[in-house]
Amino acid sequence: MQKPSIPEGTRDFGPEQSRRRSFIFDTLRDAFIRFGYEPLETPAMENLSTLLGKYGEEGDKLLFKILNNGDYLKDVDPQLLASKDSAQLIPHISKRGLRYDLTIPFARYVVMNRHALVFPFKRYQIQPVWRADRPQRGRYREFYQCDADVIGSDSLHYEAELIVLYDYAFTKLGIPVVIKVNHRQVLYGIAEAAGVADRFMDMTVAIDKLDKIGLDGVRKELADRNFSPDAIARIEQALSLNSSAELRHLLSKSSAGMDGLAELDTVSAYLEGLLLHNEVRRDITLARGLTYYTGCVFEVVAAVEGLRMGSLGGGGRYADLTGVFGLPGLSGVGISFGADRIYDVLEYMNAFPEILSKSLHVLFMALDTDSHRYAFHLMSRVRAAGIRAELYPEPGKLKKQFEYAARRRATWAAIVGEAECANHTVVLKDQRTGSQYTVTAEELPKWLAEH
Amino acid sequence: MQKPSIPEGTRDFGPEQSRRRSFIFDTLRDAFIRFGYEPLETPAMENLSTLLGKYGEEGDKLLFKILNNGDYLKDVDPQLLASKDSAQLIPHISKRGLRYDLTIPFARYVVMNRHALVFPFKRYQIQPVWRADRPQRGRYREFYQCDADVIGSDSLHYEAELIVLYDYAFTKLGIPVVIKVNHRQVLYGIAEAAGVADRFMDMTVAIDKLDKIGLDGVRKELADRNFSPDAIARIEQALSLNSSAELRHLLSKSSAGMDGLAELDTVSAYLEGLLLHNEVRRDITLARGLTYYTGCVFEVVAAVEGLRMGSLGGGGRYADLTGVFGLPGLSGVGISFGADRIYDVLEYMNAFPEILSKSLHVLFMALDTDSHRYAFHLMSRVRAAGIRAELYPEPGKLKKQFEYAARRRATWAAIVGEAECANHTVVLKDQRTGSQYTVTAEELPKWLAEH
Repeated sequence: MQKPSIPEGTRDFGPEQSRRRSFIFDTLRDAFIRFGYEPLETPAMENLSTLLGKYGEEGDKLLFKILNNGDYLKDVDPQLLASKDSAQLIPHISKRGLRYDLTIPFARYVVMNRHALVFPFKRYQIQPVWRADRPQRGRYREFYQCDADVIGSDSLHYEAELIVLYDYAFTKLGIPVVIKVNHRQVLYGIAEAAGVADRFMDMTVAIDKLDKIGLDGVRKELADRNFSPDAIARIEQALSLNSSAELRHLLSKSSAGMDGLAELDTVSAYLEGLLLHNEVRRDITLARGLTYYTGCVFEVVAAVEGLRMGSLGGGGRYADLTGVFGLPGLSGVGISFGADRIYDVLEYMNAFPEILSKSLHVLFMALDTDSHRYAFHLMSRVRAAGIRAELYPEPGKLKKQFEYAARRRATWAAIVGEAECANHTVVLKDQRTGSQYTVTAEELPKWLAEH
Repeated sequence: MQKPSIPEGTRDFGPEQSRRRSFIFDTLRDAFIRFGYEPLETPAMENLSTLLGKYGEEGDKLLFKILNNGDYLKDVDPQLLASKDSAQLIPHISKRGLRYDLTIPFARYVVMNRHALVFPFKRYQIQPVWRADRPQRGRYREFYQCDADVIGSDSLHYEAELIVLYDYAFTKLGIPVVIKVNHRQVLYGIAEAAGVADRFMDMTVAIDKLDKIGLDGVRKELADRNFSPDAIARIEQALSLNSSAELRHLLSKSSAGMDGLAELDTVSAYLEGLLLHNEVRRDITLARGLTYYTGCVFEVVAAVEGLRMGSLGGGGRYADLTGVFGLPGLSGVGISFGADRIYDVLEYMNAFPEILSKSLHVLFMALDTDSHRYAFHLMSRVRAAGIRAELYPEPGKLKKQFEYAARRRATWAAIVGEAECANHTVVLKDQRTGSQYTVTAEELPKWLAEH
């Protein structure tokens, strides 16, 4: 007999975890809907032609490929097989892969449905993605992404809206955060000021690691990437600026840099006077790794005493997301929420609503077969009133039934026997205090709703 | 430039479809929770060792297999490759497959977590499954299953509970149904009475098709399976019985048959006197194809004038579900809902709640840049009151903005310019009638909530 297991890097989510995850997903969904984002679901499988080449060479390797069905080897060249070249063989035996993120499927959907959609199109999407990364603490091969994007407009009020959305959602989740904002053009301006405009991407990738590796680490990273000591010093100086006046001065000769600052100012103007619950902070060290961002970039970090954790979300504007599928010129801006990390923070804060740990309000217990049917009816009426109720599967000895009530953490035991059947009553025992009450069948739903 | 597409047999669900699907899933989830079923999520990928051999030979073929990552050919015997035997090669290049149903992962989960779970364990699960079936109308390669099962008790009150759950859920969905009930032992009794007890499964598979192929079809099917004319006549006679007294008489010599009837009577006793909204009908022609059912079986069909459609759900009791993973003797009973068919019925009935077709209550329109910021603030306040609001991305000419409002099917246009900014007001235009109202910023959220 085999001992069952699940694939490395994947997880089962039992009742309590599932309820907690639903709390996160439902909260995000409500926020997305409230802010006018419309739902989209795409299939788990995409054609490999849609996925390949979109996530870099490393991404191509980390895609899960699905073996073609049927006699998939039939038309494969025997010489190719004999060569045992795993990479070369893939296109001949696999034409589909598992979704790697939600952005490429979104772009693919927009292009396929461009004539039916009304632009700007705002969509949210909460679905799992799969990556064949080496599993480690906090990194899984199946995990959910929760994205909101608007495509088809370069209006900066969407940047402001997404900041408000972050503020709203994390307030609802009960996590205090800092929402960091920067602009790719500001970073480009810094590269210009440091004389390394031609190596902007390299510089950005290094700066992006500041949070993780510190200023020393960035300095080393830049040196490893063959930036000159002079350029490194200038970049370092820029990253250490204390006031926006200093930054404005530094970027004054970079038209890109000044454009970036102007856009950030426009976003700020939309937010001015709005009551937000979390700090929105300009942070010129914020780079965000993804290469397709071209305008504002966002990142959210928890502002929780003693907690060290990566970002809980991020996003930004990309000037051209759908060009790769033949529809250029559609600007978009989007954010995403990291559900697994949000889960970990809420657990760390002990801040999940208590109700999520409870599965049962009242357990009915019957002493005999007739009472069991009577209890079944009582339970049905109680459930109709929206109360979570169960009936112990068999009538009989109460000891076992009380043990089960305790294991299910029921607040109330509702006991019925011959007398209760005859009188149309039920005995309620408070599992916390042991107090007992006799209540009529009529009153029961209301009574339980209030106790 | 490639023209993007999605894999055959898969679907994108755009905003309106997604909202309608969520209505179905949310309704079912609420019902499951109310009836004490706890959520479970399992990974999309399972080890092939978990999946293979559980769904018959055909099922093994229809599993989507995932290609191992990295240099998956490295250790494969060159002779095996040269043989081009697709089936033989699979275990050497794939160790994972996509979930084929929710029942086997549930059984696998129960066995892996048997020491932590409290039995009876009631779980629900709403997740997609994948099958490499030939796509056709109404049959997809990715589709959702919605299951509720209880495992670890043979109490018949769970059968009654699941019938009440079906009644409750379909009432909430707004679909009138008939809930058919039968018992495998009753069918076995019929096989005994017809002298074909040794060919019970064959008989069951044929009877199961009655709905689709009619009595003539079943007769032919039985003949094709080499049942004798005499046996066929007896089976046919049994299926044509009109009263439960006649059935009781027919089965009087079959102890299995009498046991089945007694169990059905116990289930009925639990339901007696309960107010149900749909008909519960005993149907001795109900067989349900799945071979692992051993007790009661259920099936739900729509009771909608003029609609011809297969079942909207089904289920039953299985004496031993986890034995295949080394944990014998756990009896379970479960039901499932067919979300795609429920969707089709609601569409046919035109019975989806109207709100699901609307994405927007009010569109804000601004005449100039300052007003655009003012409108952004108004929108934020309106959203805080729970109203779905949008701001047209750019200030300027109203014509384009009204066109957009029409395409988004907004009920109200909220127009602001210099005067409204100065007076802290907004002009509201009813998109249905053209009527206009001027409302103060202060009153706006309440006003829109009421109009």
